[in-house]
Amino acid sequence: MSEKMKAAVFVEPNRIELDEKPIPDVGPLDALVRITTTTICGTDIHILKGEYPVERGLTIGHEPVGVIEKLGSAVQGYAEGQRVIAGAIAPSGHSNASLCGCHAQDGPGTRHGFKGLGGWRFGNTIDGAQAEYLLVPDAMANLAPVPDGLTDEQVLMCPDILSTGFSGAESGRVRIGDTVAVFAQGPIGLCATAGARLMGATTIIGVEAVPERAEISRQVGADHVVDFKKVDPVDEIRRLTDGRGVDVAIEALGLQETFEASLRVLRPGGTLSSLGVYSRDLTVPLDAFLAGLGDHTIVTTLCPGGKERMRRLMNVIASGRLDTRSLVTHHFTLDQIADAYDLFANQRDGVLKVALTP
Amino acid sequence: MSEKMKAAVFVEPNRIELDEKPIPDVGPLDALVRITTTTICGTDIHILKGEYPVERGLTIGHEPVGVIEKLGSAVQGYAEGQRVIAGAIAPSGHSNASLCGCHAQDGPGTRHGFKGLGGWRFGNTIDGAQAEYLLVPDAMANLAPVPDGLTDEQVLMCPDILSTGFSGAESGRVRIGDTVAVFAQGPIGLCATAGARLMGATTIIGVEAVPERAEISRQVGADHVVDFKKVDPVDEIRRLTDGRGVDVAIEALGLQETFEASLRVLRPGGTLSSLGVYSRDLTVPLDAFLAGLGDHTIVTTLCPGGKERMRRLMNVIASGRLDTRSLVTHHFTLDQIADAYDLFANQRDGVLKVALTP
Amino acid sequence: MSEKMKAAVFVEPNRIELDEKPIPDVGPLDALVRITTTTICGTDIHILKGEYPVERGLTIGHEPVGVIEKLGSAVQGYAEGQRVIAGAIAPSGHSNASLCGCHAQDGPGTRHGFKGLGGWRFGNTIDGAQAEYLLVPDAMANLAPVPDGLTDEQVLMCPDILSTGFSGAESGRVRIGDTVAVFAQGPIGLCATAGARLMGATTIIGVEAVPERAEISRQVGADHVVDFKKVDPVDEIRRLTDGRGVDVAIEALGLQETFEASLRVLRPGGTLSSLGVYSRDLTVPLDAFLAGLGDHTIVTTLCPGGKERMRRLMNVIASGRLDTRSLVTHHFTLDQIADAYDLFANQRDGVLKVALTP
Amino acid sequence: MSEKMKAAVFVEPNRIELDEKPIPDVGPLDALVRITTTTICGTDIHILKGEYPVERGLTIGHEPVGVIEKLGSAVQGYAEGQRVIAGAIAPSGHSNASLCGCHAQDGPGTRHGFKGLGGWRFGNTIDGAQAEYLLVPDAMANLAPVPDGLTDEQVLMCPDILSTGFSGAESGRVRIGDTVAVFAQGPIGLCATAGARLMGATTIIGVEAVPERAEISRQVGADHVVDFKKVDPVDEIRRLTDGRGVDVAIEALGLQETFEASLRVLRPGGTLSSLGVYSRDLTVPLDAFLAGLGDHTIVTTLCPGGKERMRRLMNVIASGRLDTRSLVTHHFTLDQIADAYDLFANQRDGVLKVALTP
Repeated sequence: MSEKMKAAVFVEPNRIELDEKPIPDVGPLDALVRITTTTICGTDIHILKGEYPVERGLTIGHEPVGVIEKLGSAVQGYAEGQRVIAGAIAPSGHSNASLCGCHAQDGPGTRHGFKGLGGWRFGNTIDGAQAEYLLVPDAMANLAPVPDGLTDEQVLMCPDILSTGFSGAESGRVRIGDTVAVFAQGPIGLCATAGARLMGATTIIGVEAVPERAEISRQVGADHVVDFKKVDPVDEIRRLTDGRGVDVAIEALGLQETFEASLRVLRPGGTLSSLGVYSRDLTVPLDAFLAGLGDHTIVTTLCPGGKERMRRLMNVIASGRLDTRSLVTHHFTLDQIADAYDLFANQRDGVLKVALTP
Repeated sequence: MSEKMKAAVFVEPNRIELDEKPIPDVGPLDALVRITTTTICGTDIHILKGEYPVERGLTIGHEPVGVIEKLGSAVQGYAEGQRVIAGAIAPSGHSNASLCGCHAQDGPGTRHGFKGLGGWRFGNTIDGAQAEYLLVPDAMANLAPVPDGLTDEQVLMCPDILSTGFSGAESGRVRIGDTVAVFAQGPIGLCATAGARLMGATTIIGVEAVPERAEISRQVGADHVVDFKKVDPVDEIRRLTDGRGVDVAIEALGLQETFEASLRVLRPGGTLSSLGVYSRDLTVPLDAFLAGLGDHTIVTTLCPGGKERMRRLMNVIASGRLDTRSLVTHHFTLDQIADAYDLFANQRDGVLKVALTP
Repeated sequence: MSEKMKAAVFVEPNRIELDEKPIPDVGPLDALVRITTTTICGTDIHILKGEYPVERGLTIGHEPVGVIEKLGSAVQGYAEGQRVIAGAIAPSGHSNASLCGCHAQDGPGTRHGFKGLGGWRFGNTIDGAQAEYLLVPDAMANLAPVPDGLTDEQVLMCPDILSTGFSGAESGRVRIGDTVAVFAQGPIGLCATAGARLMGATTIIGVEAVPERAEISRQVGADHVVDFKKVDPVDEIRRLTDGRGVDVAIEALGLQETFEASLRVLRPGGTLSSLGVYSRDLTVPLDAFLAGLGDHTIVTTLCPGGKERMRRLMNVIASGRLDTRSLVTHHFTLDQIADAYDLFANQRDGVLKVALTP
Repeated sequence: MSEKMKAAVFVEPNRIELDEKPIPDVGPLDALVRITTTTICGTDIHILKGEYPVERGLTIGHEPVGVIEKLGSAVQGYAEGQRVIAGAIAPSGHSNASLCGCHAQDGPGTRHGFKGLGGWRFGNTIDGAQAEYLLVPDAMANLAPVPDGLTDEQVLMCPDILSTGFSGAESGRVRIGDTVAVFAQGPIGLCATAGARLMGATTIIGVEAVPERAEISRQVGADHVVDFKKVDPVDEIRRLTDGRGVDVAIEALGLQETFEASLRVLRPGGTLSSLGVYSRDLTVPLDAFLAGLGDHTIVTTLCPGGKERMRRLMNVIASGRLDTRSLVTHHFTLDQIADAYDLFANQRDGVLKVALTP
């Protein structure tokens, strides 16, 4: 093992660059994973632009596929050389938050506090996955072996995109026979659409203006795709549902417009399941909120992580229920990461997700 | 039976007056109830002020205690002369909304639509309870016999205040060992506090500045009462919870300040259970909302109704678990209703709730 | 309208015969439905054999598809001539059981008592659907309009088979990524398999020895079908799950063997969802039950009914998510009902379900 | 620190004796706890009698209260000298079972398998708490600091009795206004009664023949106590509920009679929450089970463990909601453990629980 590795680090706003860093030491609960494939997330673009602050010099990225290079002294149940993934969110398993099932809001202390998001560590509070090696903390809670027969690219969406997207449908508690609207059909919205389909929704309405995305939306489960550039999506969804509204509205973009439209198409008693990362205060219109009397539920979900979640998601892929490879539109080596960020940040060339291989 | 009755009707904004109206005819599914005790609700004050529009001439009020005077031809299982209450919300039982358990959002058609609140009929879309007689539609779904030994005043809070207040804790899914904050300790907030206590919360924090209300708050279950005029309630709740925040925050007032404070004291993964009737758009601050990544749930609940709900609430009273008589601070006859509205609307003389007897 | 109609009545054990009966009068809450298609259920065979006692002279059958012939005076929201179905279970909507969502255990009084099953009325406590006309009580809670474009045969499984089968997966709370075993692939087991697939199970194991049923099982969602005549199903499911067991086991037959095997293949913390109608006491083996320490859930479900349930199930059909026509293997007129019972009771000629047309 | 310690070990059936053992070494994830108070459980009596097999030489006991003596090298967030408890069930936090919330069914591998109960380690698969020192594995998931001001005896019921008892009500999903029956009012049944009360049940019926236990039952929450030696409890509960049955029946003994009676008093749609450790196959009577059509749920729960659970239970005690000291009827030193077992096994002298102090 060489002592140095390449890693994409945050230098300053609008500058993420490939750098050399020492390969990290392995503590008793850690595992060192040699990355074989990783990708860039919309959140990384927020970091790149300086909208979401991280420390200078931090390695970015939270979607690892790789091979176990070295195991900590207290880690049992794994073998070096094993192919694994880890979720974007890396719960400890032993915090109070984790023990009550709130893995993403894990905290450093013994109790989970006002500050949340403690489970999101990779590329946020510790070095991330856009590198040759990744140190995975609390390895026994996080490393999920990849089933034989699945390629890196088949499981690349599991750590974040698939987990987050599905959680939109799961937190919305979609039931057989539900009508569901999904606002925005980017990678996460597409996985939310697929999740709603997997859970038994019988009318699924995607909202998207990009024709390629609309096409994939139909492939993964949408019965209708509403082009918000051609029609008012609230009016159109009202029409499609005979004035009834939807049982579950999934927000997958993070804007006031989509949040508000999600609320406006919701039937009384329905659930707005929000996945977007917002960058401004939100307004809840009084009429859409039925003055607080509509038996509405608004629920937000941060990407569920941990090895059990990853095991289940890889089962979805292995069973053939869903193939997420169509989401990977471009390929780069780690050395080309500047180009990859440039393409992805500017959403050029119909990009959905890129695959990065060190 | 006289052919005319007295009823408090909405004449125009700031004018609710006692008038004479015909005693209504009884349709096949209806029951005519002779009111023996009723009360005034905060919502009635919104109607009085013209903030919540209703038709001129409508009889106000949705909290009936009385005696069955006459039963519709298709109504079975009841007897004339029986003492009954009906919930403020009168579900049909047979609508699609009702059949999936969403009774308060019942609708006139076969499916529940964009317009909600269909279950709230008394004093909203049909004549209400501040009268000598009340016509109860879908009587078999709504009339709940009063157990022997309970007085009118003991069950007077069941139709709305107790049902709404408890639902704050129920929709918040309070669990044994939870920490719960309840913003505002008016009648509904006090019942939310009692509900949180009944469901096993072990640290309950009421927020209230009126000393008499703070005192009742402690009696019905609060471990701490925070006077928001003396300390910042967000800071104080943070201090009381060692920086951890609350598992459930119940909003029981309907203002931006209390909604926002509820969100700010909520731990990641916690639930904001909102009972207030808002009169303006709400703002959700980005930081308090953790940018949409906090695994928060915001849930609103309209007073649960129907006879099974009333049966359960009267069980609470009959079992001695809670005594709501301390909430009834003043007594009036129906003839004095103008005085009652004046007192209640202006919150004079420490009023919590009034009892009105025709 | 002729004053007499044909109806299949229970005469004595092993004798169900076509007879003439008066067309029933329509009460204020009722609707008279002219049956256009109906079918025979396994429960009807229990009645035929005298294993499930009903009154002599009762019309059998609880799976109606038809046209509204006449509406009761208090029934609103429907029109004569409308195509409708009603669930096998006909809740009142207004009983205490119904109001708390327990529609199938509806009761005649104001509270649901020790005696359950009160929601099952057709062909049990009142005249049923194997006739030219059916009187539907509490019509507003039970009549579900058939969407344009769906044939009788497309919706014929909704009143019982599809509702019961799906409920096996729903009560088992199947989640994305679950492993589910379904014991017996008769009509209800096949719909349970389809339900598990619709809810996101990624490994579905049907247990069935009849090749035609095994084939349909694979078509509607099974990943594996275990032939219990060739291998021990408990061993085989253990092998297929790498010794892990299943998250949900659905019992769809009603025998000790299948109940016990369901428990034996269940992982600790899993759910046994039981649909079968048992005819003997059951034994729960100590070892399979982990001495009561396995965090197991055993849940039984009686066919969910009511018009909202029917609306949702017809949505499943209309959306193309599932086509149940392959379950209808034989066709008879009402006049041929003796032949239909003979075929169905003896499970001859690969019969799954029959369609009966008056 | 002396190198040897005293420990109560299983020698052979009917023989648990105090022996000397080495004080265990501390692995990286472990903590060594000096026991200050512990107790004997009914399960220990099963072990004593040889009914529940454990290895010879194993130290018995799973209810530790103590002080941290030494922390493993990888354990963070604790300090030596800190007062702590650990639950009877010691989940790893990082297993697949733990990560999906099924802590008690934790397993040694990466997936939870047919064999359950993996979370119960103390006095079952590893040395237990009836000793001078206890080695706690996965310390960060299991050690819960005792709040200042609580004595050992106040928290002694938390590790097992209170956690198990409350779980009877929690798994039964007791709601405000429920009627609950609890079969047997031993220590666990009493805590189930208290749990039902804490969760809002308004009619609680304990079943118990020992007058002292009946008395405590009333103190902790029962509205009625039925003496099964004087009346048939099924008949009496039917009478007390006006023929309606109970919403939740909690079995807290582990016998066919109590299991069966629990089912017989259950309303259709109700839940039988079973806590007992059974020693024989169970019979489910066809009539009580409504032939599998009663919408019944039967749920079993193994004592919930982990530090978050312990934190919540200690909150219950600290808040004054419940005082479990009345359950501790006798005191012994560890040296007197033979006498303690003799008293407890034979249920002499009105014993409920004993306190053992090394």
